[in-house]
Amino acid sequence: MTLTLVPVEGIPEVRPGDDLVGLIAERAELAAGDVVVVTQKVVSKAEGRLVEVDPEDRDARAELVGSEAVRILRRRGDLIMTETRHGFVCANAGVDLSNVEPGWAALLPVDPDRSARRIRDGLRARLGVSVGVVVSDTFGRAWRRGVTDVAIGVAGVAGVVDLRGRADALGRELAVTEVCVADEIASAAELAMGKASAVPVVVVRGVDPSWLREASVAGEVVRPHREDLFR
Amino acid sequence: MTLTLVPVEGIPEVRPGDDLVGLIAERAELAAGDVVVVTQKVVSKAEGRLVEVDPEDRDARAELVGSEAVRILRRRGDLIMTETRHGFVCANAGVDLSNVEPGWAALLPVDPDRSARRIRDGLRARLGVSVGVVVSDTFGRAWRRGVTDVAIGVAGVAGVVDLRGRADALGRELAVTEVCVADEIASAAELAMGKASAVPVVVVRGVDPSWLREASVAGEVVRPHREDLFR
Repeated sequence: MTLTLVPVEGIPEVRPGDDLVGLIAERAELAAGDVVVVTQKVVSKAEGRLVEVDPEDRDARAELVGSEAVRILRRRGDLIMTETRHGFVCANAGVDLSNVEPGWAALLPVDPDRSARRIRDGLRARLGVSVGVVVSDTFGRAWRRGVTDVAIGVAGVAGVVDLRGRADALGRELAVTEVCVADEIASAAELAMGKASAVPVVVVRGVDPSWLREASVAGEVVRPHREDLFR
Repeated sequence: MTLTLVPVEGIPEVRPGDDLVGLIAERAELAAGDVVVVTQKVVSKAEGRLVEVDPEDRDARAELVGSEAVRILRRRGDLIMTETRHGFVCANAGVDLSNVEPGWAALLPVDPDRSARRIRDGLRARLGVSVGVVVSDTFGRAWRRGVTDVAIGVAGVAGVVDLRGRADALGRELAVTEVCVADEIASAAELAMGKASAVPVVVVRGVDPSWLREASVAGEVVRPHREDLFR
């Protein structure tokens, strides 16, 4: 199947209380089965998840990170690798000073799956169209350089797709079978965003229809401690 | 920019010595600036990176994994988390029994960047078109469930893009700035492949032209031990 990744242009700077659904609905041409990828940054801004912090005050920044983290995993210089209360392992507990007004930081949404669901419900109410929604954020990884976008919340689209029991092309049962399509969709969308160009919404068209179902990142993607070999 | 992800249909089962470039060139409509994503599996098969192993013999499988790994990081049940001689951290040193003839396992290419370069050079010689090439494989991650496709080799397309010093939309310098576009391209392509349907090649059209340059996964993406907080 051919997929297309279409950036939604012209979304203005988002402020607390803004109608994010309206901003998207007015600019995106959506069809049933599309997946709308929205960056955490605009979701957090619309939800008012902003706090004042002096960017030059390292102690204040570290304190803010500490208040957003449930665990500090590693620390090197200004980088604090944390676990958030959502169970995400990421730098600085997701506290982000880029693409935010000077003197302010954006925090992660309290419940990114709920944020995704609200956008999905809002777009359906507004446009009469059922789409999947992914809230994406930019995380580093172990072992590999560079950041990639991942899903921190989903609605109406799978987190992890289980292919166990489906045969491969040679009729053998697949060994590696649980694919995190939500993260792959977030990464794909990032290719169409451009970090510095501030396109916060991308429409992904053509995903496998079987992936369009109720789901959550919290339930499917966050790896519980007991399963995790690296925490 | 709008991107499209076009699966290349009709590539037959690949065998050692097959002309992979020819198989792609006959079926893909390529334009300058496209990125061709090819799965490790068909690259390994064409390069003859296959060994016989009894899938029921756990000791023989573990021995094979051990011979392909330079380090065992973690072990749980049949899962052995390894570091390969390429510096990749992945399950079972990349030894893969799915989508391979029964009784055989596919090993990782010896030098996946060189594999990518050969495909790029071959497509240019054959079609007169300069494309980027990504050799992709399916890896698990720390902290998050499900596998995603990543780049194990690249040619003519960046591994990591450095946006340092470019201003964000509000004129502030970006904090998180090194994006692993190679992994994002691999993940995007996987969405168009479908694990069980055996489409081993996807054409990604529309990537930022500034990403099309000489590069390698070994040089840009593999995180050296001294930088790595999780190894």
